[in-house]
Amino acid sequence: DRVRRNGRPSTLAPMAKQAEFIVGIDLGGTKMHVGIVDREDRIVGECRRKTRGDGGLDMVLDRMVEAVDRACDDAGIDFDRVAAVGVGAPSAIDHPRGVALRAVNLGWTDVPLRTLLEKRLDRPVALDNDVNVAAWGESRLGAGRGVSTMLGVWVGTGIGGGLVLDGVLHRGHFFTAGEIGQMVIAASAPPGQRTVEEVCSRTGMVNALRGLVGRDEDSPLARRLHDAKRSHVGSSLLAESYRARHPAVRSVVDHAAERLGLVLANLATVLSPEAIVLGGGVTEALGETWIELVRTPFRRWVFPDSMRRCRIEASTLGDHAGVLGAALQARDATT
Amino acid sequence: DRVRRNGRPSTLAPMAKQAEFIVGIDLGGTKMHVGIVDREDRIVGECRRKTRGDGGLDMVLDRMVEAVDRACDDAGIDFDRVAAVGVGAPSAIDHPRGVALRAVNLGWTDVPLRTLLEKRLDRPVALDNDVNVAAWGESRLGAGRGVSTMLGVWVGTGIGGGLVLDGVLHRGHFFTAGEIGQMVIAASAPPGQRTVEEVCSRTGMVNALRGLVGRDEDSPLARRLHDAKRSHVGSSLLAESYRARHPAVRSVVDHAAERLGLVLANLATVLSPEAIVLGGGVTEALGETWIELVRTPFRRWVFPDSMRRCRIEASTLGDHAGVLGAALQARDATT
Repeated sequence: DRVRRNGRPSTLAPMAKQAEFIVGIDLGGTKMHVGIVDREDRIVGECRRKTRGDGGLDMVLDRMVEAVDRACDDAGIDFDRVAAVGVGAPSAIDHPRGVALRAVNLGWTDVPLRTLLEKRLDRPVALDNDVNVAAWGESRLGAGRGVSTMLGVWVGTGIGGGLVLDGVLHRGHFFTAGEIGQMVIAASAPPGQRTVEEVCSRTGMVNALRGLVGRDEDSPLARRLHDAKRSHVGSSLLAESYRARHPAVRSVVDHAAERLGLVLANLATVLSPEAIVLGGGVTEALGETWIELVRTPFRRWVFPDSMRRCRIEASTLGDHAGVLGAALQARDATT
Repeated sequence: DRVRRNGRPSTLAPMAKQAEFIVGIDLGGTKMHVGIVDREDRIVGECRRKTRGDGGLDMVLDRMVEAVDRACDDAGIDFDRVAAVGVGAPSAIDHPRGVALRAVNLGWTDVPLRTLLEKRLDRPVALDNDVNVAAWGESRLGAGRGVSTMLGVWVGTGIGGGLVLDGVLHRGHFFTAGEIGQMVIAASAPPGQRTVEEVCSRTGMVNALRGLVGRDEDSPLARRLHDAKRSHVGSSLLAESYRARHPAVRSVVDHAAERLGLVLANLATVLSPEAIVLGGGVTEALGETWIELVRTPFRRWVFPDSMRRCRIEASTLGDHAGVLGAALQARDATT
C-alpha cells in the first residue's frame, strides 16, 4: 500500500494508528521540508515552506516549529505522538555538541541548534549536516540499502557529499568530511573554475554556458541565460536542452560528467566503496543519461580493475532522502 | 632505557624476561623485516633479509619462517614465548579470509597467506596490507598517537596510503582502500605521467630528471641517471642534490611536493583528518624540508579554513612502522 507520485515510488502512505512517529527536517538555505515518519519508515505527513534565513535565527526556528505542526496536521496526528526530531542543516555540524558551526546560506556561526530546538519542541533532537543525513537516508532506505561503504554525491546548485564507511557516517575530526564539491581539480584555472562544484554543479555549468551561448541565439536557454532580470537556468531547462542536442549544452554537460567521473574514480581508488549514489537536481533532471555519462570515465580511471564493480546509481529517495535520513538518525539516537 | 640508533629514537630495548611476545613481519616486494615485539611495544629482536619473490611462494614462506627464528635468536627468546604473528604484505588483502588477492611484486594472485603461515608457524596470524599496517603503527605508537582520524602516506619507490578513520583501519569493500598513489591527477598527460605515484614518487621524480639532466653534466646525479648498467637514483642522492641546490632537482622535487600537497588537501577536504603522517624513503631523506614543501600547498588549497589545523607530520617510527603495526594488529586480533 505504498503511494506512487509522478511515477516514482513514494514513501508516502496512510499512517498506522498506533505507531510512534519521528519528525525529519531537511533544512535548506532557501526552503525547508518537514516529514512525519512512521515505524515502517514511511512519510505519513509533510510540510514544505521557505526557510527565510534573512529573517534571522528566531524566525527560522519559529518557522521550523510551525512546519512541524503543519506536517503533524497533514499526517492527522497530534505532536504528542512524536518521539524525537532529526534535523539536517546546511552547515558543518559539531556533532557531539549539536552546534551548527557555519551555515553560509543562513548567515549562522556557532549556533547551538540542537539545544535551541530541544527547548522549543521539548523532544530529543538529532542534528547533522544536510548532505550527511541524505546520504544516510539513501544508505538505509534508498539506492544504498544493504551497502556498508557508500559515497552519496548531490549535484545541483552546488555539490555536496556524504560518506558512509563501514556502516558509519564519517564526519571527520573537524566535522567537515564529505565536501567533495570543494576538491580542487584545476588548480591553474582562473578563480571560480577550479573546484568540482565550480565545474560540475548546475551553477558551474550555467556559468560556462553564459560564455558559449550568444545573446542572438533564438532559444529558451539563450533568453534565460542573458535575461538581465532573472538569469536563472534550472536543471530541467538544462536537461531539455541536452536532450534537444544543443551543442554547447552537450559539450558543457559532457565535460562536467567527465570531470565528475574522474573525481569519483579517484575517491573510489582511495575509499573502495561498494556503491556511489548520485542525487540532486541535475541528477534528477538528466536521469540515467547523467549516470551513464559519469560511469564511463569512472570505469576508465578507477584503480584497480576490481573497483569497476563499484556501482554508480541514482538516488531512489529523491528529495525525501534528507527527511528520512534525519528521522532515522533521530530514531537511532533515542532508542 | 630506549636504545638510540643513527640518532633516531629506536624502539629497540632489552626484553623483559617474563613478557609474552608478538612477531611483526613487514613483507616487502624486495626485502622483509621481522621484529619481536614485547608487551611494552618495544622491538627486542630483529631480522632483515631479501624476500626473493622470484623463488616462488614456498621459498618466500620458508624465508619468512627462518627470519622469525633468527629474530627470536636476536631477541634471545624461544619461539614458544611468541603468542601471535602479524604480517603486512604488498598486496590487497581480503581481510576476513586472510587472502593476498594480488601482489604484483611477488607475482601472487589469491594466495591464502594467513592459513599457509598459521600452518607453518602454529600460531594465529593477522594479515593486512603493508601500508595499512604501517599507518596503523604510526596511529598507535608514532606521529599519529592519540589521533582517531589520520591518513598515512608513504612516499618512496612508489606511493601508498593507509586510512585510519574514527579509530578504525578503513580497508574498503573491495579491500583496496588507501591507494592514494593511483589517483589520477593529470588525465591529459602522457601515459606514465598521470597518477600521484607517477609524478610524486622517487621513481616518478627520477624519470622526470632523466629528461632534464644532460649526459654531459659532471655530477654524481648525472652519472647515476644515465648509467646504462645501474641507473638507480636513491632517495639519499636525490636529497643531497636538492640540498646542493641542483636546479633540475629543485624544480622536480618542488613540483612533486606541490602536487602531493594539493592531493592531500583534496583528501583532507573530503575526509577531515586530524593529522596526515608522511613516511617512506623520500620523506626520510628530505626530512622536514619535504614536509614543509608539502604543507604550503596543503594549507593553500584545503577546505574549509578550519582544516588548516590538520597537522602534517613525518613518521616517527621510520621503517619500524610496519613491524610494529603488524604486531599490534596480531595482538588486538588474539586478545
